[in-house]
Amino acid sequence: METPRAQRARQAADVLRRQITQGAFADGVLPGERALGERLGASRNAVREALSLLRSEGLITRRQGVGTTVVKPKYGHGLDELAGLAETLDGHGTVTNEVRAASVTRPPAAIAEQLRLPPDAEVVHIERLRRLAGIPLSLDTTYLAADIGRPLLQHDLAGRDLFALIEETTGERLGSAEVDVHAISAGPDTAALLGIPAGAAIFAIDRVTSLADGRPVDAESLHIRADRLTLHATLHRRPVR
Amino acid sequence: METPRAQRARQAADVLRRQITQGAFADGVLPGERALGERLGASRNAVREALSLLRSEGLITRRQGVGTTVVKPKYGHGLDELAGLAETLDGHGTVTNEVRAASVTRPPAAIAEQLRLPPDAEVVHIERLRRLAGIPLSLDTTYLAADIGRPLLQHDLAGRDLFALIEETTGERLGSAEVDVHAISAGPDTAALLGIPAGAAIFAIDRVTSLADGRPVDAESLHIRADRLTLHATLHRRPVR
Repeated sequence: METPRAQRARQAADVLRRQITQGAFADGVLPGERALGERLGASRNAVREALSLLRSEGLITRRQGVGTTVVKPKYGHGLDELAGLAETLDGHGTVTNEVRAASVTRPPAAIAEQLRLPPDAEVVHIERLRRLAGIPLSLDTTYLAADIGRPLLQHDLAGRDLFALIEETTGERLGSAEVDVHAISAGPDTAALLGIPAGAAIFAIDRVTSLADGRPVDAESLHIRADRLTLHATLHRRPVR
Repeated sequence: METPRAQRARQAADVLRRQITQGAFADGVLPGERALGERLGASRNAVREALSLLRSEGLITRRQGVGTTVVKPKYGHGLDELAGLAETLDGHGTVTNEVRAASVTRPPAAIAEQLRLPPDAEVVHIERLRRLAGIPLSLDTTYLAADIGRPLLQHDLAGRDLFALIEETTGERLGSAEVDVHAISAGPDTAALLGIPAGAAIFAIDRVTSLADGRPVDAESLHIRADRLTLHATLHRRPVR
């Protein structure tokens, strides 16, 4: 069972994670343990344990002579509206994509179903490792209905969001997406690609995106570094029924 | 770097995770490796590796004579609207809460700021381990503005959502919440409370909820088992500007 100190350490880590996410430490340097303890209402031991939890999340680092610093601010990825990574991170740096696969193929049956295609239909399969300012952020596997995907193979898959490319090549606007967010431990191979330790927590996101007319055209699995990205949403209370 | 087989195993695991989440295996039993391979368009080795990834996520289990079965279906928690756990899981079983703390206290400075309270203001601090049908699902730490929180201490914290209690006791409707979703590895103590292996991936959610008039009254940190819960959202494309 959890000891009272472990409980206080967890609560202190929660508050610190929140502050780091919100950019409370503008210069990226955290106060010393004593000052943090006062700020968090926690003992020095609890502060130390909280810092250790956040270090294991890859959020902070400790360096001799410098103290405790934020590794890098986390980027917020909105869950409020449907947007591509480059759109979302506009202003934070350039998104570049290492194209690992881009071909016409037959999809797994489950993907064909999601795209409402006959079992023997062809799709365009694209896999990209996406980097922000050179640092891996997301590994995206995409299956596109063939008529939507084929024209994209001629375009700049290394530099552009697929959403923007789909809208440009079809002349149609995307409508909505059904999104399932999982938190999983990265397997050793995925971790190596993303540049994180094996077993680190990542987001695995299943997303099926439809055109404005409701036709599903894009089924994706995104593996996103959770030490670099936070998912943000503003939720509203449902009107009384 | 990732081998082609590891790549195919990851892709197969993604498709299977998606199907399991959507309840594709009604009886909870997965087909054999050969049938799965045909369904996923993957070799038997890749299927085996995919099953091993999903086993390490706590999603499936393998039992002699029974085969591969889904441990338990994942519950979907909507990110579309603001709702308490019991509201969301209505129909899936009874939510019960082990109340681990419920007192008036002074909050960490960061929490006071979030609730727009003076640094020396009191708050009500509530911590609850929440179970669905007896199985731990979420560990919630809540700080409430004192005028909102005090009346709640007289109510059924073991059986009710705080959202519903706030609306009943104030006679006011909640408005909206700002939500930050993190994926982290559970520390040993949190993991023990939630009944999962240390280091397993969980959701850590920071949520600040306001009344309909815009006043923030409820700052929470939720630690949610990711092997039992998926976050779901329907996202819409922003109109062209």
